[in-house]
Amino acid sequence: MSRGNGSAIGLHRVLEPAGVLPQAAWRLDASPQLYDDEVRLRVERLNLDAASFRQLREAHNGDGDAVRREVLEIIATRGKMHNPVTGSGGMLVGVVEEVGAGSTLGLAVGERVATLVSLTLTPLVITDELARWDGTDEQVPASGHAILFGRSIAAVLPPDLPVPLSLAVLDVCGAPALTSRVVRGYSQPRVLVIGAAGKSGALALAAAREAGASSLVGLVPSPEEATRLSAAELADDVVLADARDPVAVAQAVGAPADVTIVCVDVPGCEGGAILATAPGGTVVFFSMATSFAAAALGAEGVAADVTMLVGNGYAPGHADMALGLVRSRPGVRRLFEQRLDLELSVSS
Amino acid sequence: MSRGNGSAIGLHRVLEPAGVLPQAAWRLDASPQLYDDEVRLRVERLNLDAASFRQLREAHNGDGDAVRREVLEIIATRGKMHNPVTGSGGMLVGVVEEVGAGSTLGLAVGERVATLVSLTLTPLVITDELARWDGTDEQVPASGHAILFGRSIAAVLPPDLPVPLSLAVLDVCGAPALTSRVVRGYSQPRVLVIGAAGKSGALALAAAREAGASSLVGLVPSPEEATRLSAAELADDVVLADARDPVAVAQAVGAPADVTIVCVDVPGCEGGAILATAPGGTVVFFSMATSFAAAALGAEGVAADVTMLVGNGYAPGHADMALGLVRSRPGVRRLFEQRLDLELSVSS
Repeated sequence: MSRGNGSAIGLHRVLEPAGVLPQAAWRLDASPQLYDDEVRLRVERLNLDAASFRQLREAHNGDGDAVRREVLEIIATRGKMHNPVTGSGGMLVGVVEEVGAGSTLGLAVGERVATLVSLTLTPLVITDELARWDGTDEQVPASGHAILFGRSIAAVLPPDLPVPLSLAVLDVCGAPALTSRVVRGYSQPRVLVIGAAGKSGALALAAAREAGASSLVGLVPSPEEATRLSAAELADDVVLADARDPVAVAQAVGAPADVTIVCVDVPGCEGGAILATAPGGTVVFFSMATSFAAAALGAEGVAADVTMLVGNGYAPGHADMALGLVRSRPGVRRLFEQRLDLELSVSS
Repeated sequence: MSRGNGSAIGLHRVLEPAGVLPQAAWRLDASPQLYDDEVRLRVERLNLDAASFRQLREAHNGDGDAVRREVLEIIATRGKMHNPVTGSGGMLVGVVEEVGAGSTLGLAVGERVATLVSLTLTPLVITDELARWDGTDEQVPASGHAILFGRSIAAVLPPDLPVPLSLAVLDVCGAPALTSRVVRGYSQPRVLVIGAAGKSGALALAAAREAGASSLVGLVPSPEEATRLSAAELADDVVLADARDPVAVAQAVGAPADVTIVCVDVPGCEGGAILATAPGGTVVFFSMATSFAAAALGAEGVAADVTMLVGNGYAPGHADMALGLVRSRPGVRRLFEQRLDLELSVSS
């Protein structure tokens, strides 16, 4: 029997407090029966957000079994994997199990997908007690189900790329999409990417090139990253500076940029980005460490006529675009694989 | 003897730590001798930032004399009125005393100006011990001098408007300038202003009308504000909702806006602004209470394809534009005067 459509953004799944958005909710209804515009996934793996996993590990002094029990407890209590301390979640991988008659997400039963909306708003039930997970890694093998709303976002994992690579790309796929859009608003602009050898930075460089940048500057903090970025052949100039030092950034960049993309996940990079950008230019902040006040007051303090954008993680077609860049630009793929290797060697 | 030009953003006045921007500096050189591109003001009044004054008053249990001594101590120590606890400053009013031969600010000796860059980056010396101030009000009569850099911003106070009105307008003059620019990017857009009966909100409404908005919605939190806003005749529709309740905001607004301007100085307004904005639309956040992460994750969480701007307090011509709106739109002036009356009655 049809239940009709739900709210496209999941309001019908909010149990408490009533009336808030799913992300703000304490508890969601994660029951498996679908509203017409929903999709149910069979869960294969959770990828916990790094900040969330670190908090859990530290709270339990590295006791993996205790971490596992707390993750189970959170999901059972809240109907979603929403760490109440950090406020963060992560993403999941699963296989499409049932598609509601009114769903417009374009998914078909049997497809393997990654969710691109946070676990903090995704209804989730775990049925295997996470028995295959030892609690010492943010990659969590899992069985159970999850619900996608009418307007949720999920990307089909491409058969031609390794799953860890695809997940890493999808995690930052908002950056190249917005970079492309902003760069296309200028004629042959000079583009600066701060934190250019990282994952979002590499994709932003590649997207800026495709969007018509005439000159691409990649800023990195160390000679090692400079060597890697130069070898990837994504930037015309690779420059070295501490992104938190405004004067050093402006000097390293030289001629100011028309578009500056900030991809460094450390606080205090607002001033350098603003100083390195020409009047009439645009700064896009993708780092979650960005301070709204530092950006607003920083630009005012130096009378900088720059447009400053909050890096929205969503734009139509963002996943396909990012995966396309990884396929077409060997330098992007190489930087991602080097990062993934680094992460594996750090966590092991 | 000429000292030559300084750094346009004041780096040459930073004493410690070396190499940072004046706003980030612990201590500035506030000596009166000018570099060629600088301007010196004879200070008449400091307007302490509200957050800073509140902190000082509470720290001293309302003892005005102690507050006065601490303000003197801060200025003497740091060479600027930069509250080390709140990190905020304020603005000042003064008369142009000397203009360096290389200054491009367009100021003439004898003009009365308000600084539009923060006191947190303005070299300042006080010479009268603030003897005319009792420490119980954020308006501080003062004598001394202040320095403007090559790229500082100051606005000449217009002779036809009362000084308190001009100061209140200049304090928020970035809002109408950026609103106008964004609205002109759309063809006959529907514009929503959240917090529309406040100072920046009223100016944003007036600017949006001049920039070609076809439909203007003003959202306010109370029937009293709705009455005032309706009487000002700045909006086509006045609607009531708690800006922190996304669902209520979206319902009150009805048809989504192409451009949404957030002028409410309380946290938690990101979700409502995003939900009330159409795909392809733009949200401008002017509130310093905006959370960067809440905006970025909020848009992603509901797959909202909206452009989100950090409200830059500076744009060329912003002061003249705002003062012009106060002159040409009686409703704007009335809302400002009502606000100023309210502030006087609250602080007395």
